[in-house]
Amino acid sequence: MKKDTFDDNYYMRMAIRLARKGIGKTSPNPMVGAVIVAKGEVIGQGYHKRCGDHHAEINAINSAKQNINGSTFYITLEPCSHYGRTPPCVDALIKETPGRVVVGSLDPNPEVNGKGIKILRSKGIKVDVGILEHECMRLNKYYFKFVKTGMPYITVKYAQTLDGRIATRGGDSQWISSEASRKYVHRLRSINGGIMVGAGTVTADNPQLTVRHVKGKNPFRIIVDSRLRIPIKSSVLTDANSHLTIIATTSSAPAVKIAAVEKLGVEVWVVKKERNGRVSLRDLLRKLGKREIMSVLVEGGSEIVTSLLKAGLVDKMIIPIAPKIVGKGLESIGDLNINKINNSIKFSSFKTMKKGDDIVFEGTIK
Amino acid sequence: MKKDTFDDNYYMRMAIRLARKGIGKTSPNPMVGAVIVAKGEVIGQGYHKRCGDHHAEINAINSAKQNINGSTFYITLEPCSHYGRTPPCVDALIKETPGRVVVGSLDPNPEVNGKGIKILRSKGIKVDVGILEHECMRLNKYYFKFVKTGMPYITVKYAQTLDGRIATRGGDSQWISSEASRKYVHRLRSINGGIMVGAGTVTADNPQLTVRHVKGKNPFRIIVDSRLRIPIKSSVLTDANSHLTIIATTSSAPAVKIAAVEKLGVEVWVVKKERNGRVSLRDLLRKLGKREIMSVLVEGGSEIVTSLLKAGLVDKMIIPIAPKIVGKGLESIGDLNINKINNSIKFSSFKTMKKGDDIVFEGTIK
Repeated sequence: MKKDTFDDNYYMRMAIRLARKGIGKTSPNPMVGAVIVAKGEVIGQGYHKRCGDHHAEINAINSAKQNINGSTFYITLEPCSHYGRTPPCVDALIKETPGRVVVGSLDPNPEVNGKGIKILRSKGIKVDVGILEHECMRLNKYYFKFVKTGMPYITVKYAQTLDGRIATRGGDSQWISSEASRKYVHRLRSINGGIMVGAGTVTADNPQLTVRHVKGKNPFRIIVDSRLRIPIKSSVLTDANSHLTIIATTSSAPAVKIAAVEKLGVEVWVVKKERNGRVSLRDLLRKLGKREIMSVLVEGGSEIVTSLLKAGLVDKMIIPIAPKIVGKGLESIGDLNINKINNSIKFSSFKTMKKGDDIVFEGTIK
Repeated sequence: MKKDTFDDNYYMRMAIRLARKGIGKTSPNPMVGAVIVAKGEVIGQGYHKRCGDHHAEINAINSAKQNINGSTFYITLEPCSHYGRTPPCVDALIKETPGRVVVGSLDPNPEVNGKGIKILRSKGIKVDVGILEHECMRLNKYYFKFVKTGMPYITVKYAQTLDGRIATRGGDSQWISSEASRKYVHRLRSINGGIMVGAGTVTADNPQLTVRHVKGKNPFRIIVDSRLRIPIKSSVLTDANSHLTIIATTSSAPAVKIAAVEKLGVEVWVVKKERNGRVSLRDLLRKLGKREIMSVLVEGGSEIVTSLLKAGLVDKMIIPIAPKIVGKGLESIGDLNINKINNSIKFSSFKTMKKGDDIVFEGTIK
C-alpha cells in the first residue's frame, strides 16, 4: 500500500469516527465527518451534530487553527451542492481553496450525486472519491436506503429462545432476553427515527416504547392497527409522549375512535388496505418516508414481522437469542410460503455478539 | 501463584494434551495422559491409546529415558488399583518409586475412587490431587457420566434455521447446514460410542449414519423404532455395517419382522414400553450402558429429541444454526409442557462457534 493511501485511510477513519458522534441526531440528514490536514497535521475537524445545524465541512472550516489554503480536506460524504436547510458546502469549500478534497462516498441524493464533485473539479480542486467507500456507505445505511427508495430502513428486532420461540404456549415472554440485550434494544431505539409494533403487542403488553436505560431521544411510535382496536387507555395514547405516536389504520377504523384518539394529541393515518383488510405496510413505509422518518425499528409481534418479511420490506434483523429451550410456544416467524430451504430468506452479511447471557444475531437481508 | 503450582499446571496441561490423542478410541475406558518429570526435564510420557492397550502410566514408564526413581509423575486421572483388562497401575508405580505423584482428578469408578491414591500414600509416595481438576474431569465427561449413572452421555445434535426450523412446511431440509458444520458432525460421530435416530428419520431420509469426510471409526447405530416399521431395505439394515446397528423396539414389534431384521446381522432389543406405547428411552439408555456404550449422539428427529428433553436425559446440545429464515415449518423441539419462561431448559455453560456460514451453539444442560 502506498504511503498516500495509508494516510488517506487513516484520516478518513478519523472522519468516520467524528461522523458517528451525530448518531441518532442528524435525521433526515446523513451523519458526516470532516478532517483538514496540512503537512501531516490535523488543522481542523468537525461533524454534523444535528439536523438544522452546520454541516461537517463548515464545522471543520470554522475549527481550523490556520488558513486551509492548499490543505487536504477529508469528508465521509460528497459535499452538498444545493440549498437545503443550509447553503451548499461546495461554495464554502471553493472559497477556502484546499489543494485536494478526499471524499468517502458519493451522496445518493439526486440533487447532489456527483454534482458536488464536478463543481469542485471545475474550480481546479483535485478530488479523490471512494476512500473507505464501503465503511462510509455503511455509516449512512439508513440515509442511503431512504434517499434511494423514499422508504425508511427497516430493522426487525425480537428476542427469541434457542428454539425460535417468542413466548411459551401459555403466552409468557418475561424475560426471554437478558438485561444486557434489553439495554441494547433501548440504544437501538434511540438511533432509529421510529419504533413500530402491531396492535396485538400494544393490547397484550401495553408497552411504553420509549428510550430508557440509555441516553437518547424518543423516536416516533408507530402502531399498526388496521381496525383501531387498541385500548383508549394504552400508554402510547395517554402518556406525555402521545405527540410522538402515529397510528396507522385503514378505512375500517370507526370514525368515533379516530376522533377520540386524535383528541389525545395522537396522529391517526388512514393508509391503504391489503386484500386481507390489513394495513398496507408498503404504503405505510412510503408515508413514513414522506414524513422524513429515515429508519424504523420493528419490535413485533410475529404477525407484523412475518408480513414485512413476506413483502420483502426488511433490511436488517437483530435477534437476541436466549440460551433457553421452551418447546411448543409462540413461533418467532409465521408462514412465509417457503417450501424449499433454497428459497429461504438469507443474509448478505451477519455477525453474532454476546450480550449478557444472550447471543445477539445481527444480519443484513440479501 | 507459586512456582510449584505453575509447573504442576504446565505438566498437567501437557498430560491432558496427550490424553486427548486417544479421543474416540478408549471407550469404555477414560482418556488418560501421563508425563514424568525429573529436574525440570520431561523424561517420559504416554497416553492410553485404545481400550485393551496399556494404560497411560505404563506407556509413560516404558518410554522413560532414565530411571524414574525420585521423579514427579503427572497423571490426568487417578491410577487404577484393580485388575481390569490390565493389571493395576498403582503396582507398577510403586515399583518405580517416583518421589511424587500429581493427579488431575479422582476416578469416579467405585472400584478405584480414592483407593489408588491411598495405596500410593501408604507406600510413602507423596500424592497431590486436583491439579487442573475441572479440565481433567471435562476431558472425560462421557466416562464420568457413564461410571456414575450407568447410562451414556447424551449429546443431542440437529441443524436448524435461525427461526428454529429443521425443515420447511414442505418437509425439505437439504441443506439447512453448511458443509463445514456437516463435517463437524462427522467428527462428533467418530468420538461417540453410538448415534441414535428415530424410525421416522430412517424412513424419511434413509441415512447411512457412518463416519465420512473425517477419519474415525463408525459408532453403533441405534434406531428407536417402537413398532419396528423401518423399511427392510434401509441402509442401516443392509449395508456392510449392519453388525453395528441396534434396533430398539418394544413388544409391539411383529415377531416376523424381528426375525427378518436379525437375519441381516442386526441386533434387535426389545425394551420397556412407555404408557404411550413408545420405547422407554430411560430403559434403552440403561441397556446401552450395560453394553458399555459410554456416549451417544442423538441426531433426531424432533420427536425423539423432545422425548429425551422432557425426560431430562440430555447432557449436551449441539445446534448448528443456519443464518436462514423459512417461517412456518417443522419445529426443532415439540411440546415440553413448559408454560413459564422461568421453567425453560437452561444451560450451565455454552459457547458459539462459526463453522462455514453456520453459527454452532454448544451448551451443557443445567
